[in-house]
Amino acid sequence: MAEDRENRISEQPEDSIRQVMDLIARHRLVENLVHKQDMPRHELVESLVHKQNLAELQKKLDQLHPADVAYILEALPLEDRLLVWDLVKAERDGDILIEVSDAVRESLIASMDNQELVAAAASLDTDEIADLAPDLPRDVVQELLRSLDETKRAQVVSSLSYREDSVGALMDYDFVTIRADVTVEAALRYLRRLGDLPSHTDKLFVIERDGTLIGVLPLKRLLIHDPEVHIAAIMVDDPVSFQPEDDASDAAQAFERYDLITAPVVDARGKLIGRLTVDVVVDFIRAQTESDMLALAGLREEEDLFTTVWKAAKNRWMWLAINLCTALVASRVVGAFEGSIEKLAALAALMPIVAGLGGNTGNQTGTLVVRGLALGLINRDNAMRLLVKELGISLLNGAVWGGVMGVVTYLLYGNVGLGAVMALAMLLNLTVAALAGFLAPTLIDRLGRDPAFGTAVLITFITDSMGFFIFLGLATMFLL
Amino acid sequence: MAEDRENRISEQPEDSIRQVMDLIARHRLVENLVHKQDMPRHELVESLVHKQNLAELQKKLDQLHPADVAYILEALPLEDRLLVWDLVKAERDGDILIEVSDAVRESLIASMDNQELVAAAASLDTDEIADLAPDLPRDVVQELLRSLDETKRAQVVSSLSYREDSVGALMDYDFVTIRADVTVEAALRYLRRLGDLPSHTDKLFVIERDGTLIGVLPLKRLLIHDPEVHIAAIMVDDPVSFQPEDDASDAAQAFERYDLITAPVVDARGKLIGRLTVDVVVDFIRAQTESDMLALAGLREEEDLFTTVWKAAKNRWMWLAINLCTALVASRVVGAFEGSIEKLAALAALMPIVAGLGGNTGNQTGTLVVRGLALGLINRDNAMRLLVKELGISLLNGAVWGGVMGVVTYLLYGNVGLGAVMALAMLLNLTVAALAGFLAPTLIDRLGRDPAFGTAVLITFITDSMGFFIFLGLATMFLL
Repeated sequence: MAEDRENRISEQPEDSIRQVMDLIARHRLVENLVHKQDMPRHELVESLVHKQNLAELQKKLDQLHPADVAYILEALPLEDRLLVWDLVKAERDGDILIEVSDAVRESLIASMDNQELVAAAASLDTDEIADLAPDLPRDVVQELLRSLDETKRAQVVSSLSYREDSVGALMDYDFVTIRADVTVEAALRYLRRLGDLPSHTDKLFVIERDGTLIGVLPLKRLLIHDPEVHIAAIMVDDPVSFQPEDDASDAAQAFERYDLITAPVVDARGKLIGRLTVDVVVDFIRAQTESDMLALAGLREEEDLFTTVWKAAKNRWMWLAINLCTALVASRVVGAFEGSIEKLAALAALMPIVAGLGGNTGNQTGTLVVRGLALGLINRDNAMRLLVKELGISLLNGAVWGGVMGVVTYLLYGNVGLGAVMALAMLLNLTVAALAGFLAPTLIDRLGRDPAFGTAVLITFITDSMGFFIFLGLATMFLL
Repeated sequence: MAEDRENRISEQPEDSIRQVMDLIARHRLVENLVHKQDMPRHELVESLVHKQNLAELQKKLDQLHPADVAYILEALPLEDRLLVWDLVKAERDGDILIEVSDAVRESLIASMDNQELVAAAASLDTDEIADLAPDLPRDVVQELLRSLDETKRAQVVSSLSYREDSVGALMDYDFVTIRADVTVEAALRYLRRLGDLPSHTDKLFVIERDGTLIGVLPLKRLLIHDPEVHIAAIMVDDPVSFQPEDDASDAAQAFERYDLITAPVVDARGKLIGRLTVDVVVDFIRAQTESDMLALAGLREEEDLFTTVWKAAKNRWMWLAINLCTALVASRVVGAFEGSIEKLAALAALMPIVAGLGGNTGNQTGTLVVRGLALGLINRDNAMRLLVKELGISLLNGAVWGGVMGVVTYLLYGNVGLGAVMALAMLLNLTVAALAGFLAPTLIDRLGRDPAFGTAVLITFITDSMGFFIFLGLATMFLL
């Protein structure tokens, strides 16, 4: 299958994609014209142009790689997306469903009946079926499992049993094994007889009779050694391997660090059960960093760009509600100083600067700490040093920018005391910000959660509330 | 070299890393004890323990993969980092310098003299030398270039001539070429004679006599076809290839989409000049998404976790200064309404809620748009639809949460008018936020800049200023 895919990539996929996009746009244009002039839908000319267009579109789509079709589907609004989806040959449905994002996949699956879904999924490898299964209706999964042979069914069921972010959920079952006591020549003959190798095969897995992994044999060693050499003499006997329960992010780091293409997955007794490949790992890395980025912005999960307003609104409600609560608390802090503000309204104008700069500083520290935690660079030994450094930066920045703002405040309001309070409040709140930026993600991490979720909200909450409190409190004490 | 690296990976690298970390901690402990008790530095016992420790540490380090040593260096404060760096064998310096982050690399290079640097760099492949060169002192680069043979020197110079984010800057020159008119058997014999293949080789590049690329031959086809078949009959004749001027991010997308491991790089006339490999692409993807994440948080560039306070502060000044300016403008908006605030101090307490929720909503939209632009999913045809959707979500959220806040405001202050102004201001500012969230990254993108840089600052500026203006303006009009 991978060989077919490779063959389908045209030299200039960008051009083909643009042509398809143009055809879709032309199709919509004709439809709109017909619509506006109130022509009867079945009119001859229209239907001819229409059919010609669609035929051309279908031809172009057939020539595209499944990943390119997926890309086009992602970039189209729902209506056009389903038009294109209908034109795609049924036997390619499965490959394309695997490539699209979760949100788009949902919209495509909703447009298919059970029979089509079973057919589409049945054409896939077992690890791909396991990827797809959670998004399919329950009865489709049942029917699908019944249609598989026993080995494949067992593989799908076991893939589904692993945590989402574990090695087991990412591994596939396509590998070639070999025994250590055969020669290079015998191995080459064996491969030739196999007739095809799974995609991404860069090494064979060397096992004992009972299935225990004892080494790996990079294909290039097979190519450069003499025919009569034994596999045992040229295999790598301490390869990097994973267990299905391992964290996928640890495995991803190992792939990056050791530049791996494939790696064996073994059970607790060392028996070979699966394989991790770099393409799946790359997708995992991309998905992980994106979900961190979306989480930092307060989006609960990946969102289809053209999803319905209702669905998107729901995706964003949770963070908005939390944000509303924290904003209310900060507002009550200000409310406690309403008497001071009535006497000196300048305080109301200046307090957002103290809070805003604090939030900014806190989030700089917070992002660095989130990244450091994700890469495993922060531990008990060096955490204190990091905190001291961040506090140092905040003191320096607080002194510099607090001083600047103190002068600006004096120039604006001609009030020396107000300038001094401003400078001191900035210095203190930037220190609070460094503390919050360090503690918020560290605590979330200690609680066993992903620090990307919630760090920004927590930091902003602290810097806002404390910023208002420090500034208005100092002003009330010294100026009124 | 790649083979050696693969051999060095122990089965449990995590354990080895932890052992090394423990040794370093123990070493520091002894040092501190000696220090505290004011023992003379040269005292016998101490120096013995010390030496024993360092010897053990050195032994452990020698067994580690360069990437693991790099990881340890990243996680250590400067003092300990240089201690470890001194213990690393000189011949491994180059491999390790390639693996560490820019910020840490700088600190290591600063501790080496010119001779050491030339020796370390000379041990690397030409593409790696080109990676390292921008960080080296000028005279070291000159000396280094003089020490290379003509081919290698030309390769380094041409690598250095490409834009940082281009395919040319990422490609290497390690590939195996073959002619189309030879047989599988001849090819196998040729590879065996070569004795080693470059790392990541999953395909050979098929070229004509003048160096023009005419196809690629996946190794697995070489393995599964009969010895007498000709290469021309089994090669892939329309492979994905890149030109050195292509954007690296486009190439990375192609690698992800088509699950590539290596791909040829050709010049404008189709002549083979280099190769892209998946490990470099993975590093590029990681660096790109990280720099976006850091940029969204207002960090100018990657920061060594344990850099000096002074350096880190400089890295963060630019965004703080910009943020200070935008906060000042927002503050002047509030200043214009000081008269209203004096009469009704509750306005000061409520206005941060309007601004804050606006910023939150705007950044949700902004992050989605930044991501859509990065993936190339947003174009002229669908931009309007996307904007309409985002405005719809904001109207819905504005109506819901504005309504909630209106009621809460009424309950807090017993003032129906104030509640109504609050609800209306929330609705309007959330609409402004959707507009800002869409327009800010789109405009930055049109100007040819990376939308990740500046989007958040611009959105927050608009939602703060407009939030204050709308809320205080409405209140002044209707309540006072």
